Amino acid sequence: MQRYKCTISYDGSGYSGYQIQPNGRTVQGELEAALKKIHKGEHVKVTGSGRTDAGVHAVGQVIHFDTPLTIPKERWPIVLNSLLPDDVSIQNAVSVESEFHARYSVVKKEYRYKVYLNTYRDPFQRNYAFHFPYPLDIQEMEKASKFLIGTHDFTSFCSAKTEVVDKIRTIEKINLRIKNNQLEVQFIGNGFLYNMVRILMGTLLEVGIKKRSAEEIPWILQQKNRIHAGKTAPAEGLYLWKVFYN
Amino acid sequence: MQRYKCTISYDGSGYSGYQIQPNGRTVQGELEAALKKIHKGEHVKVTGSGRTDAGVHAVGQVIHFDTPLTIPKERWPIVLNSLLPDDVSIQNAVSVESEFHARYSVVKKEYRYKVYLNTYRDPFQRNYAFHFPYPLDIQEMEKASKFLIGTHDFTSFCSAKTEVVDKIRTIEKINLRIKNNQLEVQFIGNGFLYNMVRILMGTLLEVGIKKRSAEEIPWILQQKNRIHAGKTAPAEGLYLWKVFYN
Repeated sequence: MQRYKCTISYDGSGYSGYQIQPNGRTVQGELEAALKKIHKGEHVKVTGSGRTDAGVHAVGQVIHFDTPLTIPKERWPIVLNSLLPDDVSIQNAVSVESEFHARYSVVKKEYRYKVYLNTYRDPFQRNYAFHFPYPLDIQEMEKASKFLIGTHDFTSFCSAKTEVVDKIRTIEKINLRIKNNQLEVQFIGNGFLYNMVRILMGTLLEVGIKKRSAEEIPWILQQKNRIHAGKTAPAEGLYLWKVFYN
Repeated sequence: MQRYKCTISYDGSGYSGYQIQPNGRTVQGELEAALKKIHKGEHVKVTGSGRTDAGVHAVGQVIHFDTPLTIPKERWPIVLNSLLPDDVSIQNAVSVESEFHARYSVVKKEYRYKVYLNTYRDPFQRNYAFHFPYPLDIQEMEKASKFLIGTHDFTSFCSAKTEVVDKIRTIEKINLRIKNNQLEVQFIGNGFLYNMVRILMGTLLEVGIKKRSAEEIPWILQQKNRIHAGKTAPAEGLYLWKVFYN
Protein backbone atom coordinates (compact mmCIF):
# COMPACT_ATOMS: atom_id res chain seq x y z
CA MET A 1 0.00 0.00 0.00
CA GLN A 2 1.20 3.49 -0.79
CA ARG A 3 -0.15 6.61 0.89
CA TYR A 4 -0.72 9.71 -1.25
CA LYS A 5 -1.13 13.28 -0.04
CA CYS A 6 -3.10 15.52 -2.41
CA THR A 7 -3.76 19.25 -2.40
CA ILE A 8 -7.23 19.96 -3.71
CA SER A 9 -9.34 23.04 -4.54
CA TYR A 10 -13.08 23.21 -4.59
CA ASP A 11 -15.85 25.69 -5.13
CA GLY A 12 -18.02 24.98 -2.09
CA SER A 13 -21.16 26.58 -3.50
CA GLY A 14 -22.44 23.32 -4.96
CA TYR A 15 -21.60 21.17 -1.93
CA SER A 16 -23.29 20.30 1.36
CA GLY A 17 -19.78 20.49 2.81
CA TYR A 18 -16.57 18.51 2.70
CA GLN A 19 -17.54 15.53 4.83
CA ILE A 20 -19.59 12.64 3.47
CA GLN A 21 -23.18 12.47 4.74
CA PRO A 22 -26.30 10.47 3.93
CA ASN A 23 -27.96 13.28 1.94
CA GLY A 24 -26.38 15.91 -0.25
CA ARG A 25 -23.36 16.19 -2.46
CA THR A 26 -20.03 16.29 -0.62
CA VAL A 27 -16.40 16.73 -1.64
CA GLN A 28 -15.33 13.58 0.16
CA GLY A 29 -18.17 11.72 -1.57
CA GLU A 30 -16.99 12.86 -5.01
CA LEU A 31 -13.36 11.96 -4.24
CA GLU A 32 -14.26 8.50 -2.98
CA ALA A 33 -16.53 7.90 -5.99
CA ALA A 34 -13.66 8.79 -8.37
CA LEU A 35 -11.20 6.56 -6.46
CA LYS A 36 -13.71 3.71 -6.49
CA LYS A 37 -13.79 3.85 -10.30
CA ILE A 38 -9.99 3.71 -10.46
CA HIS A 39 -9.96 0.79 -8.00
CA LYS A 40 -12.48 -1.29 -9.97
CA GLY A 41 -15.31 -0.89 -7.48
CA GLU A 42 -13.25 -1.16 -4.27
CA HIS A 43 -13.98 1.54 -1.67
CA VAL A 44 -11.00 3.79 -0.86
CA LYS A 45 -11.37 5.99 2.19
CA VAL A 46 -10.28 9.62 1.84
CA THR A 47 -9.14 11.51 4.94
CA GLY A 48 -9.20 15.31 4.87
CA SER A 49 -7.32 17.82 7.04
CA GLY A 50 -10.72 18.75 8.48
CA ARG A 51 -14.26 19.52 7.41
CA THR A 52 -15.52 22.60 5.65
CA ASP A 53 -19.19 23.54 5.87
CA ALA A 54 -21.74 23.87 3.06
CA GLY A 55 -20.79 26.79 0.80
CA VAL A 56 -17.25 27.12 2.21
CA HIS A 57 -14.47 26.97 -0.39
CA ALA A 58 -11.01 25.46 -0.43
CA VAL A 59 -7.96 26.64 -2.33
CA GLY A 60 -5.57 24.26 -0.57
CA GLN A 61 -7.43 21.53 1.29
CA VAL A 62 -5.23 18.47 1.91
CA ILE A 63 -6.37 14.85 1.84
CA HIS A 64 -4.68 11.45 1.99
CA PHE A 65 -5.62 7.98 0.84
CA ASP A 66 -3.94 4.57 0.58
CA THR A 67 -3.79 2.55 -2.60
CA PRO A 68 -2.30 -0.71 -3.84
CA LEU A 69 -2.08 0.75 -7.38
CA THR A 70 1.27 1.74 -8.85
CA ILE A 71 0.23 4.84 -10.74
CA PRO A 72 3.13 7.35 -10.81
CA LYS A 73 2.45 10.42 -8.63
CA GLU A 74 2.40 12.84 -11.62
CA ARG A 75 -0.43 10.79 -13.14
CA TRP A 76 -2.75 10.92 -10.10
CA PRO A 77 -3.99 14.50 -10.65
CA ILE A 78 -4.65 13.80 -14.34
CA VAL A 79 -6.49 10.54 -13.69
CA LEU A 80 -8.53 11.88 -10.76
CA ASN A 81 -9.39 15.21 -12.45
CA SER A 82 -10.72 13.35 -15.48
CA LEU A 83 -13.18 11.52 -13.18
CA LEU A 84 -14.10 14.39 -10.85
CA PRO A 85 -16.78 17.06 -11.43
CA ASP A 86 -15.35 20.41 -12.53
CA ASP A 87 -16.04 22.23 -9.23
CA VAL A 88 -13.28 20.23 -7.53
CA SER A 89 -9.72 19.80 -8.75
CA ILE A 90 -6.61 17.92 -7.64
CA GLN A 91 -3.72 20.40 -7.82
CA ASN A 92 -0.92 18.14 -6.70
CA ALA A 93 -0.21 14.60 -5.45
CA VAL A 94 2.86 13.32 -3.62
CA SER A 95 3.64 9.91 -2.10
CA VAL A 96 4.17 10.06 1.65
CA GLU A 97 5.18 7.77 4.52
CA SER A 98 2.34 5.87 6.17
CA GLU A 99 2.99 8.00 9.31
CA PHE A 100 1.63 11.05 7.50
CA HIS A 101 -2.00 11.77 8.36
CA ALA A 102 -3.95 14.60 6.67
CA ARG A 103 -5.70 15.48 9.94
CA TYR A 104 -3.42 14.44 12.80
CA SER A 105 -0.20 15.74 11.24
CA VAL A 106 -1.54 19.29 10.73
CA VAL A 107 0.74 21.91 12.29
CA LYS A 108 -1.25 24.96 11.36
CA LYS A 109 -3.94 26.17 8.99
CA GLU A 110 -4.63 29.30 7.02
CA TYR A 111 -8.13 30.51 6.25
CA ARG A 112 -9.08 33.60 4.30
CA TYR A 113 -12.33 35.49 4.41
CA LYS A 114 -13.39 37.74 1.51
CA VAL A 115 -15.80 40.65 1.86
CA TYR A 116 -17.14 42.66 -1.08
CA LEU A 117 -17.69 46.25 0.03
CA ASN A 118 -19.23 48.01 -2.98
CA THR A 119 -22.74 49.49 -2.72
CA TYR A 120 -24.37 47.18 -5.24
CA ARG A 121 -23.74 43.45 -5.38
CA ASP A 122 -21.31 42.00 -7.90
CA PRO A 123 -22.95 39.02 -9.67
CA PHE A 124 -19.52 37.39 -10.10
CA GLN A 125 -18.85 37.41 -6.37
CA ARG A 126 -22.24 36.29 -5.09
CA ASN A 127 -20.92 32.86 -4.10
CA TYR A 128 -17.32 33.92 -3.45
CA ALA A 129 -17.42 36.88 -1.07
CA PHE A 130 -19.76 38.27 1.60
CA HIS A 131 -21.47 41.41 0.30
CA PHE A 132 -21.22 43.95 3.12
CA PRO A 133 -21.82 47.44 1.69
CA TYR A 134 -21.02 49.51 4.79
CA PRO A 135 -18.03 51.76 5.51
CA LEU A 136 -15.50 49.97 7.70
CA ASP A 137 -13.04 51.36 10.20
CA ILE A 138 -10.13 49.14 9.26
CA GLN A 139 -7.85 50.55 11.97
CA GLU A 140 -10.37 49.59 14.66
CA MET A 141 -10.65 46.13 13.11
CA GLU A 142 -6.87 45.77 13.15
CA LYS A 143 -6.82 46.86 16.78
CA ALA A 144 -9.49 44.23 17.59
CA SER A 145 -7.56 41.54 15.72
CA LYS A 146 -4.47 42.19 17.89
CA PHE A 147 -6.47 41.14 20.98
CA LEU A 148 -7.23 37.81 19.28
CA ILE A 149 -3.62 36.93 18.48
CA GLY A 150 -2.02 34.46 20.85
CA THR A 151 -3.24 31.50 22.90
CA HIS A 152 -6.78 31.88 24.24
CA ASP A 153 -9.83 29.89 25.21
CA PHE A 154 -12.02 30.57 22.16
CA THR A 155 -15.30 29.22 23.61
CA SER A 156 -16.98 32.58 22.87
CA PHE A 157 -15.95 32.30 19.21
CA CYS A 158 -17.12 28.77 18.66
CA SER A 159 -20.51 27.35 17.72
CA ALA A 160 -22.33 26.20 20.86
CA LYS A 161 -23.02 22.95 18.97
CA THR A 162 -19.40 21.83 19.05
CA GLU A 163 -18.45 18.60 20.82
CA VAL A 164 -14.79 19.49 21.25
CA VAL A 165 -13.84 19.91 24.93
CA ASP A 166 -10.52 21.72 24.72
CA LYS A 167 -11.24 25.12 23.22
CA ILE A 168 -7.80 26.59 23.69
CA ARG A 169 -6.22 27.52 20.36
CA THR A 170 -3.36 29.73 19.23
CA ILE A 171 -3.88 32.35 16.52
CA GLU A 172 -0.55 33.33 15.02
CA LYS A 173 -1.67 35.92 12.50
CA ILE A 174 -4.69 37.97 11.44
CA ASN A 175 -3.97 40.24 8.52
CA LEU A 176 -6.45 42.63 6.85
CA ARG A 177 -5.94 43.79 3.29
CA ILE A 178 -8.19 46.06 1.24
CA LYS A 179 -7.95 46.18 -2.56
CA ASN A 180 -10.56 47.38 -5.07
CA ASN A 181 -13.59 47.27 -2.76
CA GLN A 182 -12.53 43.85 -1.56
CA LEU A 183 -11.45 43.11 1.99
CA GLU A 184 -9.47 39.92 2.47
CA VAL A 185 -8.68 38.76 5.98
CA GLN A 186 -6.04 36.10 6.55
CA PHE A 187 -6.26 33.91 9.66
CA ILE A 188 -3.37 31.59 10.58
CA GLY A 189 -3.49 29.40 13.66
CA ASN A 190 -2.72 25.96 15.05
CA GLY A 191 -6.38 24.99 14.83
CA PHE A 192 -9.82 26.51 14.48
CA LEU A 193 -12.99 25.43 16.27
CA TYR A 194 -16.36 24.88 14.60
CA ASN A 195 -17.48 28.16 12.93
CA MET A 196 -14.59 29.97 14.64
CA VAL A 197 -13.28 31.91 11.64
CA ARG A 198 -16.82 32.96 10.65
CA ILE A 199 -17.61 34.15 14.20
CA LEU A 200 -14.27 35.98 14.44
CA MET A 201 -15.01 37.62 11.09
CA GLY A 202 -18.60 38.53 12.06
CA THR A 203 -17.27 40.11 15.26
CA LEU A 204 -14.52 42.03 13.42
CA LEU A 205 -17.14 43.40 11.01
CA GLU A 206 -19.24 44.60 13.94
CA VAL A 207 -16.15 46.41 15.20
CA GLY A 208 -15.66 47.81 11.69
CA ILE A 209 -19.12 49.40 11.65
CA LYS A 210 -18.64 50.54 15.26
CA LYS A 211 -21.41 48.39 16.62
CA ARG A 212 -18.78 47.36 19.19
CA SER A 213 -15.36 48.61 20.18
CA ALA A 214 -12.05 46.79 19.72
CA GLU A 215 -11.56 46.89 23.51
CA GLU A 216 -14.54 44.56 24.00
CA ILE A 217 -12.56 41.63 22.60
CA PRO A 218 -10.67 40.63 25.78
CA TRP A 219 -13.95 40.78 27.69
CA ILE A 220 -15.71 38.59 25.08
CA LEU A 221 -12.88 36.03 25.33
CA GLN A 222 -13.20 36.00 29.13
CA GLN A 223 -16.93 35.32 29.09
CA LYS A 224 -16.42 31.94 27.39
CA ASN A 225 -19.93 32.18 26.03
CA ARG A 226 -20.91 32.26 22.36
CA ILE A 227 -23.72 34.78 22.92
CA HIS A 228 -21.25 37.62 23.55
CA ALA A 229 -19.45 37.44 20.19
CA GLY A 230 -20.79 38.77 16.89
CA LYS A 231 -22.89 37.10 14.23
CA THR A 232 -21.50 34.17 12.26
CA ALA A 233 -20.38 35.61 8.91
CA PRO A 234 -21.85 33.69 5.95
CA ALA A 235 -20.16 30.66 4.40
CA GLU A 236 -19.63 32.11 0.90
CA GLY A 237 -16.76 34.39 2.01
CA LEU A 238 -14.69 31.65 3.66
CA TYR A 239 -11.76 29.77 2.09
CA LEU A 240 -9.58 27.05 3.58
CA TRP A 241 -6.44 28.51 2.03
CA LYS A 242 -3.52 26.34 3.13
CA VAL A 243 -2.74 23.48 5.48
CA PHE A 244 0.75 23.32 6.96
CA TYR A 245 2.63 20.14 7.89
CA ASN A 246 6.18 19.56 9.15
CA MET B 1 -42.15 59.46 -20.00
CA GLN B 2 -38.53 59.47 -18.88
CA ARG B 3 -35.81 57.34 -20.46
CA TYR B 4 -33.23 55.72 -18.17
CA LYS B 5 -29.85 54.34 -19.16
CA CYS B 6 -28.52 51.62 -16.86
CA THR B 7 -25.18 49.86 -16.67
CA ILE B 8 -25.64 46.25 -15.66
CA SER B 9 -23.42 43.27 -14.81
CA TYR B 10 -24.38 39.65 -15.09
CA ASP B 11 -22.90 36.24 -14.64
CA GLY B 12 -23.93 34.60 -17.92
CA SER B 13 -23.48 31.04 -16.69
CA GLY B 14 -27.09 30.70 -15.59
CA TYR B 15 -28.59 32.36 -18.67
CA SER B 16 -29.61 31.26 -22.16
CA GLY B 17 -28.25 34.63 -23.27
CA TYR B 18 -29.20 38.28 -22.99
CA GLN B 19 -32.13 38.40 -25.40
CA ILE B 20 -35.59 37.23 -24.44
CA GLN B 21 -36.71 33.96 -26.05
CA PRO B 22 -39.60 31.54 -25.67
CA ASN B 23 -37.62 28.98 -23.64
CA GLY B 24 -34.84 29.52 -21.14
CA ARG B 25 -33.88 32.16 -18.64
CA THR B 26 -32.64 35.42 -20.17
CA VAL B 27 -31.24 38.66 -18.78
CA GLN B 28 -33.77 40.77 -20.69
CA GLY B 29 -36.54 38.51 -19.37
CA GLU B 30 -35.41 39.04 -15.76
CA LEU B 31 -35.10 42.81 -16.24
CA GLU B 32 -38.55 43.09 -17.81
CA ALA B 33 -40.08 40.92 -15.07
CA ALA B 34 -38.60 43.21 -12.39
CA LEU B 35 -39.82 46.35 -14.19
CA LYS B 36 -43.28 44.83 -14.60
CA LYS B 37 -43.53 44.44 -10.82
CA ILE B 38 -42.54 48.08 -10.30
CA HIS B 39 -45.09 49.18 -12.94
CA LYS B 40 -47.99 47.28 -11.38
CA GLY B 41 -48.20 44.64 -14.08
CA GLU B 42 -47.55 46.90 -17.09
CA HIS B 43 -44.98 45.56 -19.56
CA VAL B 44 -41.88 47.76 -19.93
CA LYS B 45 -39.61 46.97 -22.86
CA VAL B 46 -35.87 46.88 -22.16
CA THR B 47 -33.44 47.61 -25.00
CA GLY B 48 -29.85 46.39 -24.67
CA SER B 49 -26.70 47.57 -26.48
CA GLY B 50 -26.70 44.17 -28.16
CA ARG B 51 -27.11 40.48 -27.38
CA THR B 52 -24.73 38.23 -25.54
CA ASP B 53 -24.90 34.47 -26.03
CA ALA B 54 -25.60 31.76 -23.47
CA GLY B 55 -22.78 31.62 -20.93
CA VAL B 56 -21.27 34.97 -21.97
CA HIS B 57 -20.83 37.49 -19.14
CA ALA B 58 -21.23 41.23 -18.89
CA VAL B 59 -19.40 43.64 -16.64
CA GLY B 60 -20.78 46.76 -18.32
CA GLN B 61 -23.75 45.94 -20.53
CA VAL B 62 -25.94 49.00 -21.16
CA ILE B 63 -29.73 49.00 -21.43
CA HIS B 64 -32.45 51.64 -21.66
CA PHE B 65 -36.15 51.73 -20.82
CA ASP B 66 -38.93 54.35 -20.66
CA THR B 67 -41.09 54.89 -17.61
CA PRO B 68 -43.86 57.21 -16.45
CA LEU B 69 -42.73 56.73 -12.82
CA THR B 70 -40.94 59.51 -10.99
CA ILE B 71 -38.48 57.45 -8.99
CA PRO B 72 -35.24 59.44 -8.48
CA LYS B 73 -32.33 58.02 -10.50
CA GLU B 74 -30.31 57.06 -7.37
CA ARG B 75 -33.23 54.85 -6.28
CA TRP B 76 -33.51 52.82 -9.51
CA PRO B 77 -30.52 50.51 -8.82
CA ILE B 78 -31.74 49.84 -5.26
CA VAL B 79 -35.32 49.12 -6.31
CA LEU B 80 -34.37 46.98 -9.31
CA ASN B 81 -31.63 45.04 -7.49
CA SER B 82 -34.07 44.13 -4.75
CA LEU B 83 -36.32 42.51 -7.38
CA LEU B 84 -33.65 40.93 -9.59
CA PRO B 85 -31.96 37.54 -9.08
CA ASP B 86 -28.47 37.81 -7.62
CA ASP B 87 -26.63 36.83 -10.81
CA VAL B 88 -27.56 40.17 -12.40
CA SER B 89 -27.01 43.59 -10.89
CA ILE B 90 -27.77 47.20 -11.82
CA GLN B 91 -24.57 49.17 -11.22
CA ASN B 92 -25.78 52.59 -12.21
CA ALA B 93 -28.83 54.43 -13.62
CA VAL B 94 -28.97 57.87 -15.26
CA SER B 95 -31.83 59.74 -16.90
CA VAL B 96 -31.18 60.45 -20.58
CA GLU B 97 -32.80 62.30 -23.48
CA SER B 98 -35.29 60.30 -25.52
CA GLU B 99 -32.80 60.49 -28.42
CA PHE B 100 -30.46 58.16 -26.55
CA HIS B 101 -30.75 54.56 -27.71
CA ALA B 102 -28.81 51.73 -26.03
CA ARG B 103 -28.19 50.02 -29.37
CA TYR B 104 -28.24 52.70 -32.08
CA SER B 105 -26.20 55.24 -30.11
CA VAL B 106 -23.27 52.86 -29.51
CA VAL B 107 -19.96 54.35 -30.65
CA LYS B 108 -17.73 51.45 -29.70
CA LYS B 109 -17.59 48.37 -27.52
CA GLU B 110 -15.01 46.65 -25.42
CA TYR B 111 -14.96 42.90 -24.91
CA ARG B 112 -12.49 40.92 -22.85
CA TYR B 113 -11.64 37.27 -23.12
CA LYS B 114 -10.10 35.37 -20.19
CA VAL B 115 -8.00 32.23 -20.56
CA TYR B 116 -6.76 30.15 -17.63
CA LEU B 117 -3.41 28.62 -18.54
CA ASN B 118 -2.47 26.43 -15.57
CA THR B 119 -2.09 22.65 -16.06
CA TYR B 120 -5.02 21.62 -13.87
CA ARG B 121 -8.37 23.34 -13.92
CA ASP B 122 -9.28 25.93 -11.27
CA PRO B 123 -12.76 25.14 -9.89
CA PHE B 124 -13.33 28.87 -9.25
CA GLN B 125 -12.76 29.73 -12.89
CA ARG B 126 -14.71 26.94 -14.56
CA ASN B 127 -17.51 29.32 -15.67
CA TYR B 128 -15.35 32.45 -15.89
CA ALA B 129 -12.34 31.64 -18.07
CA PHE B 130 -11.46 29.18 -20.84
CA HIS B 131 -9.11 26.52 -19.48
CA PHE B 132 -6.36 26.19 -22.09
CA PRO B 133 -3.34 24.48 -20.48
CA TYR B 134 -0.85 24.81 -23.34
CA PRO B 135 2.24 27.00 -23.61
CA LEU B 136 1.49 30.10 -25.69
CA ASP B 137 3.78 32.18 -27.84
CA ILE B 138 2.43 35.57 -26.78
CA GLN B 139 4.71 37.49 -29.17
CA GLU B 140 3.31 35.56 -32.14
CA MET B 141 -0.22 36.24 -30.87
CA GLU B 142 0.56 39.95 -30.60
CA LYS B 143 1.95 39.92 -34.11
CA ALA B 144 -1.26 38.22 -35.35
CA SER B 145 -3.41 40.74 -33.50
CA LYS B 146 -1.67 43.64 -35.32
CA PHE B 147 -2.96 42.26 -38.65
CA LEU B 148 -6.52 42.42 -37.27
CA ILE B 149 -6.37 46.06 -36.18
CA GLY B 150 -8.05 48.51 -38.56
CA THR B 151 -11.01 48.37 -40.92
CA HIS B 152 -11.57 44.99 -42.55
CA ASP B 153 -14.27 42.76 -43.92
CA PHE B 154 -14.56 40.27 -41.05
CA THR B 155 -16.68 37.67 -42.90
CA SER B 156 -14.06 35.00 -42.10
CA PHE B 157 -14.35 35.81 -38.37
CA CYS B 158 -18.12 35.73 -38.19
CA SER B 159 -20.56 32.88 -37.66
CA ALA B 160 -21.89 31.70 -41.03
CA LYS B 161 -25.37 31.90 -39.45
CA THR B 162 -25.35 35.70 -39.25
CA GLU B 163 -27.96 37.68 -41.16
CA VAL B 164 -26.01 40.95 -41.18
CA VAL B 165 -24.97 41.95 -44.71
CA ASP B 166 -22.30 44.55 -44.04
CA LYS B 167 -19.41 42.72 -42.42
CA ILE B 168 -16.96 45.59 -42.44
CA ARG B 169 -15.90 46.57 -38.93
CA THR B 170 -13.07 48.54 -37.38
CA ILE B 171 -10.98 47.08 -34.58
CA GLU B 172 -9.21 49.83 -32.70
CA LYS B 173 -7.31 47.81 -30.14
CA ILE B 174 -6.35 44.26 -29.22
CA ASN B 175 -4.28 44.05 -26.10
CA LEU B 176 -2.90 40.87 -24.49
CA ARG B 177 -1.97 40.76 -20.84
CA ILE B 178 -0.67 37.78 -18.86
CA LYS B 179 -0.83 37.72 -15.08
CA ASN B 180 -0.73 34.70 -12.73
CA ASN B 181 -1.49 32.02 -15.33
CA GLN B 182 -4.34 34.13 -16.63
CA LEU B 183 -4.38 35.63 -20.12
CA GLU B 184 -6.77 38.50 -20.64
CA VAL B 185 -7.31 39.85 -24.13
CA GLN B 186 -8.99 43.20 -24.61
CA PHE B 187 -10.85 43.88 -27.89
CA ILE B 188 -12.12 47.39 -28.68
CA GLY B 189 -13.96 48.16 -31.90
CA ASN B 190 -16.87 50.02 -33.44
CA GLY B 191 -18.88 46.82 -33.62
CA PHE B 192 -18.49 43.07 -33.51
CA LEU B 193 -20.29 40.51 -35.65
CA TYR B 194 -21.97 37.36 -34.34
CA ASN B 195 -19.33 35.18 -32.56
CA MET B 196 -16.60 37.49 -33.87
CA VAL B 197 -14.66 37.92 -30.62
CA ARG B 198 -14.80 34.21 -29.91
CA ILE B 199 -13.56 33.33 -33.42
CA LEU B 200 -10.82 35.97 -33.22
CA MET B 201 -9.79 34.53 -29.87
CA GLY B 202 -9.90 30.92 -31.10
CA THR B 203 -7.70 31.93 -34.03
CA LEU B 204 -5.23 33.83 -31.82
CA LEU B 205 -4.92 30.76 -29.56
CA GLU B 206 -4.13 28.59 -32.60
CA VAL B 207 -1.38 31.08 -33.45
CA GLY B 208 -0.24 30.88 -29.81
CA ILE B 209 0.25 27.09 -29.98
CA LYS B 210 1.83 27.44 -33.47
CA LYS B 211 -0.91 25.56 -35.22
CA ARG B 212 -0.88 28.54 -37.60
CA SER B 213 1.43 31.48 -38.15
CA ALA B 214 0.63 35.16 -37.52
CA GLU B 215 1.22 35.84 -41.21
CA GLU B 216 -1.82 33.75 -42.15
CA ILE B 217 -4.17 36.42 -40.77
CA PRO B 218 -4.25 38.74 -43.83
CA TRP B 219 -4.90 35.71 -46.02
CA ILE B 220 -7.75 34.53 -43.74
CA LEU B 221 -9.33 38.00 -43.91
CA GLN B 222 -9.08 37.97 -47.71
CA GLN B 223 -10.85 34.62 -48.05
CA LYS B 224 -14.09 36.03 -46.56
CA ASN B 225 -15.01 32.52 -45.52
CA ARG B 226 -15.56 31.31 -41.97
CA ILE B 227 -13.95 27.93 -42.61
CA HIS B 228 -10.47 29.46 -42.81
CA ALA B 229 -10.41 30.99 -39.33
CA GLY B 230 -9.84 29.10 -36.07
CA LYS B 231 -12.32 27.41 -33.74
CA THR B 232 -14.87 29.48 -31.87
CA ALA B 233 -13.49 29.88 -28.33
CA PRO B 234 -16.04 28.87 -25.66
CA ALA B 235 -18.57 31.29 -24.17
CA GLU B 236 -17.36 31.14 -20.54
CA GLY B 237 -14.23 33.23 -21.22
CA LEU B 238 -16.07 36.13 -22.86
CA TYR B 239 -17.13 39.38 -21.15
CA LEU B 240 -18.94 42.38 -22.63
CA TRP B 241 -16.77 44.81 -20.69
CA LYS B 242 -17.85 48.32 -21.66
CA VAL B 243 -20.12 50.10 -24.12
CA PHE B 244 -19.11 53.56 -25.28
CA TYR B 245 -21.49 56.39 -26.25
CA ASN B 246 -20.86 60.00 -27.19
